[in-house]
Amino acid sequence: MGVKVYGPTMSTCTARVLLCLEEMGAEYELVPVNLSIGEHKQPAHLARNPFGQVPAFEDGALMLHESRAIARYVLRKYKISGADLLKEGSLEESAMVDVWLEVEAHQFDPAIAPIFFQIFILPMIGGVPDQTVIDTNLEKLCKVLDIYEARLCKTKYLAGDFFSLADLSHVPLLHYFMGTPHASVVYSRPHVKAWWEAVSSRPACKKVTSVMPGSA
Amino acid sequence: MGVKVYGPTMSTCTARVLLCLEEMGAEYELVPVNLSIGEHKQPAHLARNPFGQVPAFEDGALMLHESRAIARYVLRKYKISGADLLKEGSLEESAMVDVWLEVEAHQFDPAIAPIFFQIFILPMIGGVPDQTVIDTNLEKLCKVLDIYEARLCKTKYLAGDFFSLADLSHVPLLHYFMGTPHASVVYSRPHVKAWWEAVSSRPACKKVTSVMPGSA
Repeated sequence: MGVKVYGPTMSTCTARVLLCLEEMGAEYELVPVNLSIGEHKQPAHLARNPFGQVPAFEDGALMLHESRAIARYVLRKYKISGADLLKEGSLEESAMVDVWLEVEAHQFDPAIAPIFFQIFILPMIGGVPDQTVIDTNLEKLCKVLDIYEARLCKTKYLAGDFFSLADLSHVPLLHYFMGTPHASVVYSRPHVKAWWEAVSSRPACKKVTSVMPGSA
Repeated sequence: MGVKVYGPTMSTCTARVLLCLEEMGAEYELVPVNLSIGEHKQPAHLARNPFGQVPAFEDGALMLHESRAIARYVLRKYKISGADLLKEGSLEESAMVDVWLEVEAHQFDPAIAPIFFQIFILPMIGGVPDQTVIDTNLEKLCKVLDIYEARLCKTKYLAGDFFSLADLSHVPLLHYFMGTPHASVVYSRPHVKAWWEAVSSRPACKKVTSVMPGSA
């Protein structure tokens, strides 16, 4: 029996889980959750994720929520030779994966998520983007990307010279962001640009982002 | 050579790392970083943590930042029989540790951290707490704690019937919070109360919190 992911394709957190499943070549079923009619706040979904958010993940009797936790589970369960994205066999390498995964969650995400919300989500719910919020967060994002540029001068990927969940976890929000006029903040940093090109050209990334709304 | 933790004892993220070291019985040196004179933004500290935050962690040539990543490293490096706080030997148990560690970071922390900031940090830097911010976040925190209460009806600890990093990671902010008049939101939920009493009475928790400012 394959695993199930509950969430809409537009959701960046759902996409984080799908990216891991595709990287591992795992079979899965994507079960849509219609946020616009509040399906995520209904009892059926609350039984899967008590916080009423997407995604939720089902593997037989095991039910998980929180995309970065599900990501770890998927990468452990389906780990195959040549595709070890957590590097748990090495104390030092796994630590660097963890560091840059936490950086994604606590430094990168808080800067880029409000930009995504203003440009993509607000107009969908009848709101008007606030340019001040966009500008403030672009400034924060640039400071984060300066640190990424310095890091990526030394290693090909964030955690080291190997692709890992730390890189993959950036894909969903960065995919949307690269479709905005602000993509220049990535292109103007040569090592960040090369990193993004390496990450986004992976077959799993191409497959998952191709069905995300807003894709070219 | 022992490991070094750079950060002030008041810092909740520094305390998260110290709690792990104490739980594992590891030797370490705590190197103070004086935030009030901006020592965390000086080149010496930026070399340890490019984001200019505390804590930073040094183990020989390995330098780590982001407290939850350091926590995982410490728990792996010093893992001893009877004190396995990540449960990485079990796919299901480690997944539940990850889920509730992510819940701590992305549901609990965003509600309780602003309350901590208003009550403890703002007055230290000459500000006046904003009761509206406190009330709004208390409401958010209560919703999170309702979900914890439902969870802790079923299992003794958050990830299951075993103590883990998911529980430990809540200690620093909850320690401060329990010293405020709002502690009743914990005491009024019997399973959350019992969980907090079990967690906070651990020798490692008592030791680390006893030197945190604001302790009785």
